[in-house]
Amino acid sequence: MMSDRVKQILSWYESDNPGTLSKLRWILGTGTLADTGKLVILPVDQGFEHGPHRSFAPNPPAYNPHYHFELALEAGCNAYAAPLGFLEAGARTYAGELPLILKLNSHELLHEERNPMPAITASVDHALRLGCAAIGFTVYPGSALNNAMYEQFQALAEEAKSAGLAVVIWSYPRGEQLSKEGETAVDVAAYAAQIGCQLGAHLVKIKLPSEHIEQEAARKVYEKENIPIKTLADRVRHVMQAAFDGRRIVVFSGGLLKGEEALYEECRAIRDGGGFGSIIGRNAFQRPRQQALAMLRKIMNIYLGKE
Amino acid sequence: MMSDRVKQILSWYESDNPGTLSKLRWILGTGTLADTGKLVILPVDQGFEHGPHRSFAPNPPAYNPHYHFELALEAGCNAYAAPLGFLEAGARTYAGELPLILKLNSHELLHEERNPMPAITASVDHALRLGCAAIGFTVYPGSALNNAMYEQFQALAEEAKSAGLAVVIWSYPRGEQLSKEGETAVDVAAYAAQIGCQLGAHLVKIKLPSEHIEQEAARKVYEKENIPIKTLADRVRHVMQAAFDGRRIVVFSGGLLKGEEALYEECRAIRDGGGFGSIIGRNAFQRPRQQALAMLRKIMNIYLGKE
Amino acid sequence: MMSDRVKQILSWYESDNPGTLSKLRWILGTGTLADTGKLVILPVDQGFEHGPHRSFAPNPPAYNPHYHFELALEAGCNAYAAPLGFLEAGARTYAGELPLILKLNSHELLHEERNPMPAITASVDHALRLGCAAIGFTVYPGSALNNAMYEQFQALAEEAKSAGLAVVIWSYPRGEQLSKEGETAVDVAAYAAQIGCQLGAHLVKIKLPSEHIEQEAARKVYEKENIPIKTLADRVRHVMQAAFDGRRIVVFSGGLLKGEEALYEECRAIRDGGGFGSIIGRNAFQRPRQQALAMLRKIMNIYLGKE
Amino acid sequence: MMSDRVKQILSWYESDNPGTLSKLRWILGTGTLADTGKLVILPVDQGFEHGPHRSFAPNPPAYNPHYHFELALEAGCNAYAAPLGFLEAGARTYAGELPLILKLNSHELLHEERNPMPAITASVDHALRLGCAAIGFTVYPGSALNNAMYEQFQALAEEAKSAGLAVVIWSYPRGEQLSKEGETAVDVAAYAAQIGCQLGAHLVKIKLPSEHIEQEAARKVYEKENIPIKTLADRVRHVMQAAFDGRRIVVFSGGLLKGEEALYEECRAIRDGGGFGSIIGRNAFQRPRQQALAMLRKIMNIYLGKE
Amino acid sequence: MMSDRVKQILSWYESDNPGTLSKLRWILGTGTLADTGKLVILPVDQGFEHGPHRSFAPNPPAYNPHYHFELALEAGCNAYAAPLGFLEAGARTYAGELPLILKLNSHELLHEERNPMPAITASVDHALRLGCAAIGFTVYPGSALNNAMYEQFQALAEEAKSAGLAVVIWSYPRGEQLSKEGETAVDVAAYAAQIGCQLGAHLVKIKLPSEHIEQEAARKVYEKENIPIKTLADRVRHVMQAAFDGRRIVVFSGGLLKGEEALYEECRAIRDGGGFGSIIGRNAFQRPRQQALAMLRKIMNIYLGKE
Repeated sequence: MMSDRVKQILSWYESDNPGTLSKLRWILGTGTLADTGKLVILPVDQGFEHGPHRSFAPNPPAYNPHYHFELALEAGCNAYAAPLGFLEAGARTYAGELPLILKLNSHELLHEERNPMPAITASVDHALRLGCAAIGFTVYPGSALNNAMYEQFQALAEEAKSAGLAVVIWSYPRGEQLSKEGETAVDVAAYAAQIGCQLGAHLVKIKLPSEHIEQEAARKVYEKENIPIKTLADRVRHVMQAAFDGRRIVVFSGGLLKGEEALYEECRAIRDGGGFGSIIGRNAFQRPRQQALAMLRKIMNIYLGKE
Repeated sequence: MMSDRVKQILSWYESDNPGTLSKLRWILGTGTLADTGKLVILPVDQGFEHGPHRSFAPNPPAYNPHYHFELALEAGCNAYAAPLGFLEAGARTYAGELPLILKLNSHELLHEERNPMPAITASVDHALRLGCAAIGFTVYPGSALNNAMYEQFQALAEEAKSAGLAVVIWSYPRGEQLSKEGETAVDVAAYAAQIGCQLGAHLVKIKLPSEHIEQEAARKVYEKENIPIKTLADRVRHVMQAAFDGRRIVVFSGGLLKGEEALYEECRAIRDGGGFGSIIGRNAFQRPRQQALAMLRKIMNIYLGKE
Repeated sequence: MMSDRVKQILSWYESDNPGTLSKLRWILGTGTLADTGKLVILPVDQGFEHGPHRSFAPNPPAYNPHYHFELALEAGCNAYAAPLGFLEAGARTYAGELPLILKLNSHELLHEERNPMPAITASVDHALRLGCAAIGFTVYPGSALNNAMYEQFQALAEEAKSAGLAVVIWSYPRGEQLSKEGETAVDVAAYAAQIGCQLGAHLVKIKLPSEHIEQEAARKVYEKENIPIKTLADRVRHVMQAAFDGRRIVVFSGGLLKGEEALYEECRAIRDGGGFGSIIGRNAFQRPRQQALAMLRKIMNIYLGKE
Repeated sequence: MMSDRVKQILSWYESDNPGTLSKLRWILGTGTLADTGKLVILPVDQGFEHGPHRSFAPNPPAYNPHYHFELALEAGCNAYAAPLGFLEAGARTYAGELPLILKLNSHELLHEERNPMPAITASVDHALRLGCAAIGFTVYPGSALNNAMYEQFQALAEEAKSAGLAVVIWSYPRGEQLSKEGETAVDVAAYAAQIGCQLGAHLVKIKLPSEHIEQEAARKVYEKENIPIKTLADRVRHVMQAAFDGRRIVVFSGGLLKGEEALYEECRAIRDGGGFGSIIGRNAFQRPRQQALAMLRKIMNIYLGKE
Repeated sequence: MMSDRVKQILSWYESDNPGTLSKLRWILGTGTLADTGKLVILPVDQGFEHGPHRSFAPNPPAYNPHYHFELALEAGCNAYAAPLGFLEAGARTYAGELPLILKLNSHELLHEERNPMPAITASVDHALRLGCAAIGFTVYPGSALNNAMYEQFQALAEEAKSAGLAVVIWSYPRGEQLSKEGETAVDVAAYAAQIGCQLGAHLVKIKLPSEHIEQEAARKVYEKENIPIKTLADRVRHVMQAAFDGRRIVVFSGGLLKGEEALYEECRAIRDGGGFGSIIGRNAFQRPRQQALAMLRKIMNIYLGKE
């Protein structure tokens, strides 16, 4: 039976067909955090995005695509997200074992751009044939190519929803008019969350917001309206407002490999600010397996309110 | 029974199928101004266009997508216009309660351009599935990318009309060859109205025209033909001529949050110049709810000739 | 019964289906010049192309779209050409009253370019639904964007012919490698006519050629072959050779509002040089109605050989 | 009955359907050179490519599209190639009289570019409706836009072959990295022939190669391998090797109007080098009719080995 | 009966349909290395890529397309790869004799670019009609046009897999941000292999990696994790890790014509590092036939562990 919390969350998605709702329910009902309305997702797209050596050499078993299916399963994650090749390589062995999110676009680092845009490297049909629960798609708000990404997302999301899939957006501000620290500025993060929600994503993935404010027009509002952004929990709370007053699922990314305590602090802030959870890649698969499992268990305990 | 005025207005749309006419009739027959041929529309696309903080922090309940459906309903507006995410988030709760206009394109401000162009962020199919009365689309006459926007509009409007929807155009001149004040110049506003009508929109939204004249070739005509443009009502009257001699519905936007009296003056000028009404966003949802309702009531009274 | 002259003209269109031939026959069989093989067409696309004030303020009743249908009918024109909005606004009232030509592309002057290209603003389906006899399309030979226009024309013309419509091309040389006077140079005008014919148009509209020669490679030929271009009638005769030795219908545009006598002189030269007639917009609708009707009557008399 | 030589030639086209083979057979079996495996083709696309005056003023009857059908028929050419307008203008009168090749792309000279690319000005459907034997298409190897042309060719050639048509390519090297004399250099001509064949054309049209070598990397090979390129016949022989060791039909273009003797010399070299024949436009239609017929008769005699 | 090794290899392709698996099985089960899991493939696309003279003049019988089918057959290669024209020219004679790989894109050298991109010169339908086992496609990771190539590959690979074909990728890093030696750097080669696998190719072709490291961020990892890259076998082993821990077929290209002993050394390193084999073009067809056959026999013996 669905928990009341999951029922409530699903009730916010007023336009979706039962096929799509069942996929959201599958994600929310899987793993250690099943039925709590909280999520921890394992994403492994770094082999394409940063190169195989930078991604997997710290923990060589992770070169093998099966490793990540098993890590996500054993850790009790809600879902596993990866590009086409990685999912194809385990599709039969792990069919139906856990919700899969197929990343439909990817970007490599042998060519870097000030206004980046990923390539479309998989399709909605692929997601259906692989038995996925959702498609995943990256947009870079602030890139000079933003329109092209929004239009690709629009078309793919519409096709996915019609086919009864859920839609996850990676909303990562980048581009020539944003400073480096502006990419995680609180105003920019809130804007990125709003864009993801207005574009119709079911689940929005953003980076944790810093205290920095990037845009002058925004700064005036933060000051005039006295919006609290001092603590990370404050900023998560503010970003959740921008996510339709909390009526859309937002998860926060873990970023670079870092110390465990720092990670736990972040998760507590996400939880206290009303965020829905974490999407943790490098911090999981770049650690030795047992260490990663212990860490993920602890993070899930934080979301369960046990730590 | 349809009023004679509404019958007259509908008679001007000589090429539309009964499905589209019934949607226009729904919009003209809804709310406080029902059957008068006048309109007040609530548009809430600013979360995407300017950011969530700049839009909703002045009145935080407005972060919630349900807020705007209720504001439009309670105020007796003719229709509510918003992008995909906002409409999806209330589609079931408010199904059939009031005419909805789905904005099919959107533009964000994390990247600004001299020749802007919005991204297509929703489809005609979305509008049909959400039970909308119309699609909305923004063009920027004067942008170096104007052709691309006109061609997108052409294709989407044709599809919408075939599917029995009405078509609303936001015709907002911008771009490298226009001065800032030229964007609202009276010659430019009249040109923007003409373009919207020639493109086949049923309802054209433009900005209120100033006394400024932007183009030299136009100035000669205004002087030679002695076209009256001194008062705002004169200019509205002139713009209505450009809208097929008044045979197309034109509404005027409220713009930035401003004092109530200034707003009422504008509405009287629109009414006296033969305009069809107002499309008021920030001036409505950035005020506290009761204040906004009182203001909208007063504006509707102006259009009813009571103030 | 079709006149021998019309039969002869139709015989030159060897590849067209009966549907298209019947539309050409409708145009050639309408109005004061019916069955003579001569044509006078009323085009009203200037509201979009130059702005509403520059187009209609000299004769304000012309703001109303019905005005032009009635002017064309009362004057006995062979056809009326306009963009989507203007035709939609009279489609029901004047259904079947006279051959309509839907302009499928349009260009506005709030943004000017050295290498212009119009936007596609209507479709072949629109033309069919509006009961039109033909589509109209503008190309700018000499623009750096010429290929794009030719390819759009190719696709739309093929679709129109398959649907039994006639195809009219506005072939107006412009672009960075042409001088201002080169746009109407006799070599360029002949080239523009040839391009229109080779692209498969049934009816080609060009500007009246001046005595200027633009291209060096062409000048050598004019001198070597001693091609007569001294009088306007000579030049029309030369252009008609370039139109498949006169086997394609070519009409000449009237251009800016000018004195009546100058206009009559031009029409006599068109007639004497073997041209098929005139397409007269501003010189018709910018004059007061009665004056315009008298003028058009006189022009038709010239083509009838009565003046 | 098909001659052994024609049977042999057709046997090299191992992937084509009977429809396409029958069109190749039609071309090879038509005119004075029928069944010899040699070809002389009349191409008349210069009205679009260079302008009507430069093309037809030297022999004014050539303005008339019927002139060229008759010239090709009377001269006993294997086929007549032209753009859409010219073929449409004779399609009914000469239906089935001789193999027609519809040029699907065209380029005009009112705008010149360093990296030229023609516009697509007709379709495979046109070719079918006009009863053509083949489509013709121009590519400019060496242009910065080469990829776009190859991809257009690929799509159109595939469509044409599926519909049972033959495919002719004009492979004319041009572009910013080629010198003027490099356009006809022997290494470049051989490369152009290879590209045409690898792209899947049945019949490749190239310019006659000069003794010049354009690319350094190629020069080393010519010297090391001692490839004979001294005489024109040597160079034709070399180019035929590049055409799949002679297993593809290659014809050579006549170029600018020139003296008859020079032309005959070229044809003898083509014959002696193993080329399949000539495609002769300006040298045919710019001469008075009787002179052209005599010249073409003589050229055919050369290919028949009689002169 | 399928060997256990081939069964194992096929088991890694978890998402493919039986049609595609049967094509992989055909390739793995053909020629001298049948059922060993090792491969030697003959690719002949150099006529298009470098020109016919540079490719075939050293061994003129190779101008004839039949030559290469026969070379691959007689040498006992697993497959023969070539562009459209070459395969069409032998499609009937050698139908079903050996697995064919149709190269779907090609690049010519009459125009060179810093950020190259091949043109699409054939289709999946061509591959099906020609009876091919697989499509082949080149991408240039590191080119500014990388996204366009990945998206083309994505669409064509999806279509090919659905039609039961196998998919081979040529993953050749090139572009403005890579140094010349960086194109074969070990970090770049590993990245290229990963990209090919993540894009969903069944068989990845890369160049042999040098000891050079191109990217600073990669160098840090190689040093920190102490990845062995000293010998060629080490580097092949590392690249195979990047190929999903060896769960994807990777073959290495032979490059320029070189001495036989050097070639044998390379093949031993590929074998010892766990690579799947070689793809050898110029080193095969630029040698006289008997010499090439002896050399290929020796290479196959190396892969069989006999030398």
